[in-house]
Amino acid sequence: VTKDQDGVKKNLSSDRVIINLDHGDPMMFEEYWKRNGDKCTITISGSQSLSYFSDPKNLCWFLEPEFGEEIKRLHNVVGNAITEDRYIVVGTGSTQLFQAALYALSSPGASSEPINVVSAVPYFSCYPAITDFLKSGLHKWAGDAWTYDKEEPYIEVVTSPNNPDGNVREPVVKRNGGMVIHDLAYYWPQYTPITSAADHDLMLFTVSKCTGHAGARIGWALVKDKDVAAKMKDFITISTIGVSKDSQLRAAKILRAVSESCQNTGLGNVKNIFSYGRSRMNERWERLRAVIKQNGLFSLPEYSNQFCNFLGECAEISPAFAWLESKGKIEDTESFLKGHNIITRSGKAFGVSNKYVRISMLDREETFNLLLERLSTL
Amino acid sequence: VTKDQDGVKKNLSSDRVIINLDHGDPMMFEEYWKRNGDKCTITISGSQSLSYFSDPKNLCWFLEPEFGEEIKRLHNVVGNAITEDRYIVVGTGSTQLFQAALYALSSPGASSEPINVVSAVPYFSCYPAITDFLKSGLHKWAGDAWTYDKEEPYIEVVTSPNNPDGNVREPVVKRNGGMVIHDLAYYWPQYTPITSAADHDLMLFTVSKCTGHAGARIGWALVKDKDVAAKMKDFITISTIGVSKDSQLRAAKILRAVSESCQNTGLGNVKNIFSYGRSRMNERWERLRAVIKQNGLFSLPEYSNQFCNFLGECAEISPAFAWLESKGKIEDTESFLKGHNIITRSGKAFGVSNKYVRISMLDREETFNLLLERLSTL
Repeated sequence: VTKDQDGVKKNLSSDRVIINLDHGDPMMFEEYWKRNGDKCTITISGSQSLSYFSDPKNLCWFLEPEFGEEIKRLHNVVGNAITEDRYIVVGTGSTQLFQAALYALSSPGASSEPINVVSAVPYFSCYPAITDFLKSGLHKWAGDAWTYDKEEPYIEVVTSPNNPDGNVREPVVKRNGGMVIHDLAYYWPQYTPITSAADHDLMLFTVSKCTGHAGARIGWALVKDKDVAAKMKDFITISTIGVSKDSQLRAAKILRAVSESCQNTGLGNVKNIFSYGRSRMNERWERLRAVIKQNGLFSLPEYSNQFCNFLGECAEISPAFAWLESKGKIEDTESFLKGHNIITRSGKAFGVSNKYVRISMLDREETFNLLLERLSTL
Repeated sequence: VTKDQDGVKKNLSSDRVIINLDHGDPMMFEEYWKRNGDKCTITISGSQSLSYFSDPKNLCWFLEPEFGEEIKRLHNVVGNAITEDRYIVVGTGSTQLFQAALYALSSPGASSEPINVVSAVPYFSCYPAITDFLKSGLHKWAGDAWTYDKEEPYIEVVTSPNNPDGNVREPVVKRNGGMVIHDLAYYWPQYTPITSAADHDLMLFTVSKCTGHAGARIGWALVKDKDVAAKMKDFITISTIGVSKDSQLRAAKILRAVSESCQNTGLGNVKNIFSYGRSRMNERWERLRAVIKQNGLFSLPEYSNQFCNFLGECAEISPAFAWLESKGKIEDTESFLKGHNIITRSGKAFGVSNKYVRISMLDREETFNLLLERLSTL
């Protein structure tokens, strides 16, 4: 903030601007695409994509073939997931695919009781509502996986790196007959070191967190079992008769550009989005940690570095969210920060104490700067 | 079919081609858009539409404002629905909006029992599965509205013109406390005369049947009550965190071109899609009726003409589906036609006898020609 009168005015006025870091809106990536997005521009004519069908002979008949190809290519380039012998199911974001997975894993059950859905605290705040909002007889939210002790069938959701706290995770219940959904939305090199190619039965990914194109509402699942993939396809057929072709075609073009920039096979030498994202995230985390250390009110998780196969060097964990805990007198961190016009999401929503809040690290630069400015003057 | 040897071969071979008229895939409109779609070409840059949000201050925060504007404009131009004092909720096709409406109308219920969902036979075959596939505790399928006699809360789905039989419909239960969803997917001038602007509490529309762009997966609801609209918005927020922006932007451009062609305000004098569709549908129905009359095995519904306010003249009902009934010995019309490589949907799926089948009238010209060819040689 400049020290002259105009600067002071600007500062006072900006204090009153509400900054909303409740959602993980990935606007940080906009600058990258403004500079490097030329190859991603897509033109769709009026006569394209009329049909419901994309690939009638494919199990997932509404998957655009070129999008399927680019998904496989990108995973191979990044090395974060095995795609061989997997079915790809496209969804309206990974949110829809999570529901499709619940449907697929719970619908054949001999049991007439809804199956228990658990995830270890702190768990992603949307899972309980998504599981229960229709009062489904197929599945019900059963809370924290750490304390789950029912002798009943269950589905465990493993989010790795975890939303909200960024930690690398594995299943914790580990019982016979347990089924696992691996939500790998954040398993990309800008957020976490890629230590191996994930090789689970059911893995969820989304364009939103990979490239930042959340408005496209495109996600995908890699599924080992054919029957599970077919039931997920059934869910999406019944609930939305497929997935926007326009956004799939756009996502295909974007993923292709990302793969090419990683391989330097495209025109020019564009820095790939993962390297860009990695340096931006490192820088933001460094600045945030400095402010948090200086004001002394909160603590942040500490992560240990690991070798990232994609970057070819040791890398930090730089999560898409800051998981802030108040150290002292503040009992309700969300309310406290709201009083300073910073909207965050309370730990309560993630199954833990409201001493915690989740803060998005992915917003535009000016918003992130405002956040640091306000945190530094608390 | 030509009479030379090649022609005969071609005919024999084309008999073995399976023609699938089970779905209402609107490929008939492709030819129109190839000729007249120049103004609908859309270009989306790599840096566009990253955010989840389209219009944060709108109740439906994921509705692209220009799409909302074009929806209102088109309804005004066509005169098929009132948009004043309505909330617009966009959905991933009207299928998602139907579920959002069920959620909105059933979730506040004081009753702990699921609310009954009914529709008059023959009803749209997908309603039962959509209502029941998650075994929701909010709503359950209760079958035919004509015979509904429970003294309990209910939701009646009124599809007008009706899918499968093309008839104009009104609610049939008409009891205190009953709630109605009006599915007006086919209330456009290519299918039916526009006799008045629909003015119901909750109306569903879809781009798929209006312009033929089914692959975009875009529908919209016009909703009178703010709380109902807000709950529908909640449903779509939880289930897919909004709706593809790319497809909304494309749909906006397509609807604008349609409005302009109706008003002749655009460049050139393009025949509007409704006049085009009307003449194509009339022609197809005339040809189909001639073949059906000639072979004598089946009957088709008869419709009376009405004055269409949009066309400014008397117009026939020319539904998107033919609702065929066998007159004589054929008990299972779907199986019978399947034996001739014609895939249709059995009357059973619509709650009536399997003497009936539904056949799409919207496929490509060559498919429709094959259909007539085969029906004429039964």
